[in-house]
Amino acid sequence: MKELVSLALKFENGRLSVLDQTLLPLEEKWLECRSPDDMIGFIQRLQVRGAPLIGVSAVLALAQLAEKGASPGELRAAAQKLREARPTAVNLMNAIDRALANIGRLPEAAAELFEEDVKLCESIAKNGVDRISDGDSVLTHCNTGALATAGIGTALGIISLAHRQGKSIRVFVDETRPLLQGARLTTYELAKAGIPHTLICDNMAAALMAQGKIQSAFVGADRIALNGDFANKIGTYSVAVLCRHHDIPFYAAAPVTTIDRHCRTGKDIPIEKRGAREVTGFEGTQKVQWASASTPAENPAFDVTPRELLTGLVLDTRYIGSDELLAKGV
Amino acid sequence: MKELVSLALKFENGRLSVLDQTLLPLEEKWLECRSPDDMIGFIQRLQVRGAPLIGVSAVLALAQLAEKGASPGELRAAAQKLREARPTAVNLMNAIDRALANIGRLPEAAAELFEEDVKLCESIAKNGVDRISDGDSVLTHCNTGALATAGIGTALGIISLAHRQGKSIRVFVDETRPLLQGARLTTYELAKAGIPHTLICDNMAAALMAQGKIQSAFVGADRIALNGDFANKIGTYSVAVLCRHHDIPFYAAAPVTTIDRHCRTGKDIPIEKRGAREVTGFEGTQKVQWASASTPAENPAFDVTPRELLTGLVLDTRYIGSDELLAKGV
Repeated sequence: MKELVSLALKFENGRLSVLDQTLLPLEEKWLECRSPDDMIGFIQRLQVRGAPLIGVSAVLALAQLAEKGASPGELRAAAQKLREARPTAVNLMNAIDRALANIGRLPEAAAELFEEDVKLCESIAKNGVDRISDGDSVLTHCNTGALATAGIGTALGIISLAHRQGKSIRVFVDETRPLLQGARLTTYELAKAGIPHTLICDNMAAALMAQGKIQSAFVGADRIALNGDFANKIGTYSVAVLCRHHDIPFYAAAPVTTIDRHCRTGKDIPIEKRGAREVTGFEGTQKVQWASASTPAENPAFDVTPRELLTGLVLDTRYIGSDELLAKGV
Repeated sequence: MKELVSLALKFENGRLSVLDQTLLPLEEKWLECRSPDDMIGFIQRLQVRGAPLIGVSAVLALAQLAEKGASPGELRAAAQKLREARPTAVNLMNAIDRALANIGRLPEAAAELFEEDVKLCESIAKNGVDRISDGDSVLTHCNTGALATAGIGTALGIISLAHRQGKSIRVFVDETRPLLQGARLTTYELAKAGIPHTLICDNMAAALMAQGKIQSAFVGADRIALNGDFANKIGTYSVAVLCRHHDIPFYAAAPVTTIDRHCRTGKDIPIEKRGAREVTGFEGTQKVQWASASTPAENPAFDVTPRELLTGLVLDTRYIGSDELLAKGV
C-alpha cells in the first residue's frame, strides 16, 4: 500500500501510526496501530481526534486489516465497531460506509480517502479565505487544523491560507475546555506555522469582542443537518451567540461529507456525553484534579448551533451565505 | 482586640490568619499574617480573594500593626501599600479609607467592619432571595460565598438563603477559568452546605441555556460605576450576554460599598491584567502547564458588564430593577 503521511497520521512500510494528541504540545509520541481495536481505543481516548482525521484513520485501520488477509465478514465486523467509536462525528460513519462499498479494494480506497481529504482542505481554504481581510484578528475554537485532518485543516486551514497570502492577521485561540484542544493543539500548529496568535480562556472572548478586538470567528463542524444547523465542539454555540450580540461575522467550515442526510435539523444530532473527571480536572501529560472527586459535573462533548447564527458555511464544494442557508438549508 | 472568625479569616488571641484559597478544596491550610506586607503577598497571590474579604483582611492587618504600637505615619504608609495590592476591587480602597478615618481606634474599627460585612451579606440575601423560585436551576460564576466575604456571601449568599428557606434548587457552577474559583471554591462551599450543584466548564452555559435548563444567573461585583455598569471576574460579561440572548434574568449582588463614586461608567474602571502562565496552565496544589511556555496569552482578571444587561442589582440597602438602573443609575 502507498505511503501516506500527514502531521498526525502515517502509513509507512505497512505500519500505521498516529501522533498521540493527548500528549501535545509537551511530548510528540507516535502510537502504532496493530488492529481496528487499537484504533477504537485511540479514538475513544482522543489520542486521534478531529472529525475528518477520525474518518481517515478508521478506514486506514480497516485497510491494514484487509492487507493482513481478513475476510469480508471480519472486515464488516471491525467496521461496525469502528463506526461506534464516537457517536457525533458523521465523517466517521461516511468514511466507513465508503470503505465497505469498496471492500474488495480497501487499501486503494483508503489511500484515495486520505488524498481527497488533503484536497478538500485546500478547497475549503480557497472558498473561505476572502472572508479574512488584511489586519483582521480572528477568533477560533478547538482545533480544526492539520492535526484534525489529513490536510491543512478546515477552519484553521482558511486562516493559514490567509496568512500564506501575506495578510497580516492575528488569531485569538479559545483554550477550549475541558480538553484544551485550543491551548494545546491550535497554539502548537500556529507556532509551527509562524502565525501570530494569542491564547485566551473561553470566557474572555466576549470582553475582547466588546473592545472591538475580534473581526470574525471561524469554527469547524462535526455534523451538519440538512437545514444548516450544526454540531461542533462544546463552546461553539457560545461563540456564535457572542458574535451575534457583537455583530461579528461567524463562519463554520467543513467538508461536504460532514452533512448528514439523516438529520433534518440540529435536534436530530446525537450529542456525546463524557465523564465528570474531564471537568473536575485535566488529564494530559500531567494529571490534575482541582475539584473534589465527588463533585457532580456535566460534560457534553458538543453543542448544536442553529443556522440562524451563521454568517456563512464554508464547504469544499462551495460557500453558502446566510440568506441561502435560511431559505434552502445545505 | 475582639475575636473574629469567618470561613476563611480569623483573628484569635492576637493572631491574624487566613485560609489559603489557592490550595482549596484539596488542602485546608491557614497562613499566619505577621505584617501588612504578609497580607499584601496573600492578596496578590490570591490566597485571600473576594472583594469584600480583601477589604476586611487588609484592615485587620492594619489593626494588628496598630496593636503592636505603630505610629500614625507607619500606619498610613502601610495603608497606602495595601491599597495598591489589587487595583480593581473598590471595597479595598473604601475599607482602607475608613480605617484611616479611625486611625486612633483601628482595632475597634476593624471589628466593626468585619461585623458589618456579616450583616451586609444577610441583607443582600434577603433583598435577592425572592428572585429564586422553588424548582429553579441557577447559574453562578466565580466564588461569591462565605469564602469571599466575612459572612455568607453576596450572590452565593442569596442562593444559600433560598436553599435554607426550603426551596428546591440546583446550582450550575461555572468553573471560572483561569483560576477556577468556581470549580475549587464554590463547589467546596456548596458541598459543605448540602446544596445540589453541577460543575460545568464556562463554555457549556450557553448550551444549557438553549436547552431551558437555567432559570436565572447570579454573579458578584468587584466595582460598580455610578450608572450601574460593573466590573466582576472575567467571564461575567459573557454570562450576561448569553442570558440576554436566551431571555434569562441576570442579577449582580454586592454591598453598597462596592459602588465607586469616582467612576461615572464602566469605562472608568481599571482592569487588572495578570500573567500568561495562569492561562497556559493552572497552578494550584499541583502545577501544570499544557501550552508551550512561549505561547502569548491575554489574561484580564475582570471584565465590565454594561447596566443594559442587568435584570437587577441586589444591594444590602435595596434592590434596583432594570428600569430604575437605566433611568437613574445606582
